Amino acid sequence: MRVFNFSAGPAALPEEVLRQAADEMLDWHGSGMSVMEMSHRGKEFMSIHEEALVDLRELLAVPSSHQILFLQGGGLGENAIVPMNLFGTKPRADFVLTGSWSQKSFNEAKKYGTVHLAASGQTADGFTRAPAHAEWQLSADPAYVHLCTNETIHGVETFDIPDLGDIPLVADASSHLLSRPMDVAKYGVLFGGAQKNIGIAGVTVVIVREDLLDRAMSVCPSAFEWKTVALNNSMYNTPPTYAIYIAGLVFKWLKKQGGLRAIEARNVEKAKLLYDTIDAGSFYKNKVERGARSRMNIPFFLADESRNDDFLAGAKARGLVQLKGHKSVGGMRASIYNAVALDGVKALVEYMKEFERRGA
Amino acid sequence: MRVFNFSAGPAALPEEVLRQAADEMLDWHGSGMSVMEMSHRGKEFMSIHEEALVDLRELLAVPSSHQILFLQGGGLGENAIVPMNLFGTKPRADFVLTGSWSQKSFNEAKKYGTVHLAASGQTADGFTRAPAHAEWQLSADPAYVHLCTNETIHGVETFDIPDLGDIPLVADASSHLLSRPMDVAKYGVLFGGAQKNIGIAGVTVVIVREDLLDRAMSVCPSAFEWKTVALNNSMYNTPPTYAIYIAGLVFKWLKKQGGLRAIEARNVEKAKLLYDTIDAGSFYKNKVERGARSRMNIPFFLADESRNDDFLAGAKARGLVQLKGHKSVGGMRASIYNAVALDGVKALVEYMKEFERRGA
Repeated sequence: MRVFNFSAGPAALPEEVLRQAADEMLDWHGSGMSVMEMSHRGKEFMSIHEEALVDLRELLAVPSSHQILFLQGGGLGENAIVPMNLFGTKPRADFVLTGSWSQKSFNEAKKYGTVHLAASGQTADGFTRAPAHAEWQLSADPAYVHLCTNETIHGVETFDIPDLGDIPLVADASSHLLSRPMDVAKYGVLFGGAQKNIGIAGVTVVIVREDLLDRAMSVCPSAFEWKTVALNNSMYNTPPTYAIYIAGLVFKWLKKQGGLRAIEARNVEKAKLLYDTIDAGSFYKNKVERGARSRMNIPFFLADESRNDDFLAGAKARGLVQLKGHKSVGGMRASIYNAVALDGVKALVEYMKEFERRGA
Repeated sequence: MRVFNFSAGPAALPEEVLRQAADEMLDWHGSGMSVMEMSHRGKEFMSIHEEALVDLRELLAVPSSHQILFLQGGGLGENAIVPMNLFGTKPRADFVLTGSWSQKSFNEAKKYGTVHLAASGQTADGFTRAPAHAEWQLSADPAYVHLCTNETIHGVETFDIPDLGDIPLVADASSHLLSRPMDVAKYGVLFGGAQKNIGIAGVTVVIVREDLLDRAMSVCPSAFEWKTVALNNSMYNTPPTYAIYIAGLVFKWLKKQGGLRAIEARNVEKAKLLYDTIDAGSFYKNKVERGARSRMNIPFFLADESRNDDFLAGAKARGLVQLKGHKSVGGMRASIYNAVALDGVKALVEYMKEFERRGA
């Protein structure tokens, strides 16, 4: 029996995608090979790769000004790869801090240049806000402004994205990419590890505006230099072929669901159901300001934290798994990515109500 | 129908491994989840990861002085990651060049320090030799000596590994790792992309002696700093979980085959069969010196190169695929990794003999 999986990543995948991957495992489309066994330079894999790119461009409406790259190293890798690619002439950047992930990006960028704190969403309750653009105090001439548009650990999502004009906006969108439409033209760089809404761990999607491909530091490794990767169509080094294949299957699935507008509507409904349950009384609590609450990662706390293990054990017994909060914030966290169906969220809120009744 | 797959990588996998992966795709061991969907911090994936490490250590007899890390970025990534990890105090290294891969490592290391050419196997026929240790002209005090123990493109394998005493030997063993036993104690660092004998593209095995974990340059990205990766048991950033799972299945398969001594005996037999066929007349040719011929990657050329396409088309019609040589050297290349069965090599040499008879 399949469980309802609320993991923050690697995370639930659509069952249809898993079935297709299993069916094609020994022989992809009559090739006599698994996708795992294909040369990345062969026509079979080239077609898989090309189709994934085309579908992703269509889904996210990526303009022709931007290239789509598949890299390795995940979001944490990009924390170094971004400054190494953009600090070539101006080794300085501004950061908007909204949680652990932007904090990590900020700290890692210090290795490569000067970092400036433009705004912070930290309050006495931890990271609970997404500072509005009016609050951002940008420096004079940064190479870029970094923002994590969805903080997986703190559950803070930034919905209001400014147009910064000439200053490239770099967004770590790992945990909400493909959960809703985005105006990609507003971003210089948009990146995300795949293990949330895109596919499996091991491939990073990097969408970069073409004029930013020429700003790398000399210490940037060739395998992670966007220009080199772009010129080689993400095949400068052997790409994580199977991860790209799974992402391609997820893109097809998303198109069948009606694309990002349709999936967004479902995500809004799922998130509302869960937040409404949390807000209904004082038994559960989410600390994030209403306008900055993530639709993807929803941390919540029991008023009586001594009952956390009890809550998690009861959830597990009902097939509701991977609900434990990140160790740095505690409590519970439900990640309700695209592949978590409304039924899963319904089962969770039913259990939450029952647990509350039992506890009262 | 499954083909005989001679791809240089990503490459053939054992059919048993593919069947098991397909069988477990929707529900791993009753967990109700695919391995793709598991948090890397959960007990299910932790057990998969731990078992892969234990099996790899046993298979390759990795001594307790060495740590096994799973990274991302492949062999090409390591070309930068190695100097960034070892040039912290002495930014200089020596290189033994035996083909394209060591050449690329040499060029990339220049970004981070001084490189010294200790020996080269290049002749008028291209890279055809593995310079013996007596020929290596080492510099006074290098941070390490780099060697590619098997050149995937040129088909040059180095079997005779010196003990360099205090100087760390770094070996790119991507395309022969796990094809035979190795004396790991002789190496400071041994690394390899998985997409040859280990599993699928997207995970890099790095085996590093513990005393070398403290020599990183300040520009080394945290996600690729071996010390950080080691301290976090390869989970500093989200590891490529599915690629580690597949590698684990391959390790179990290798143990069932009798381990590396048994697999080496089979590889010797397969390579002999193919080289004997090439050497039997003047119709086919391999240019590499006898003692340096790779058991894994066997490039060969027709005396009449105008018939290359004809040869490849005939091979494909018999289910012998991915035999085209690398574009930089031309001709044909048969990669006969562990998962390519003796039957596959027999089918290839039968076809080669038939093609020769037809052509005569």
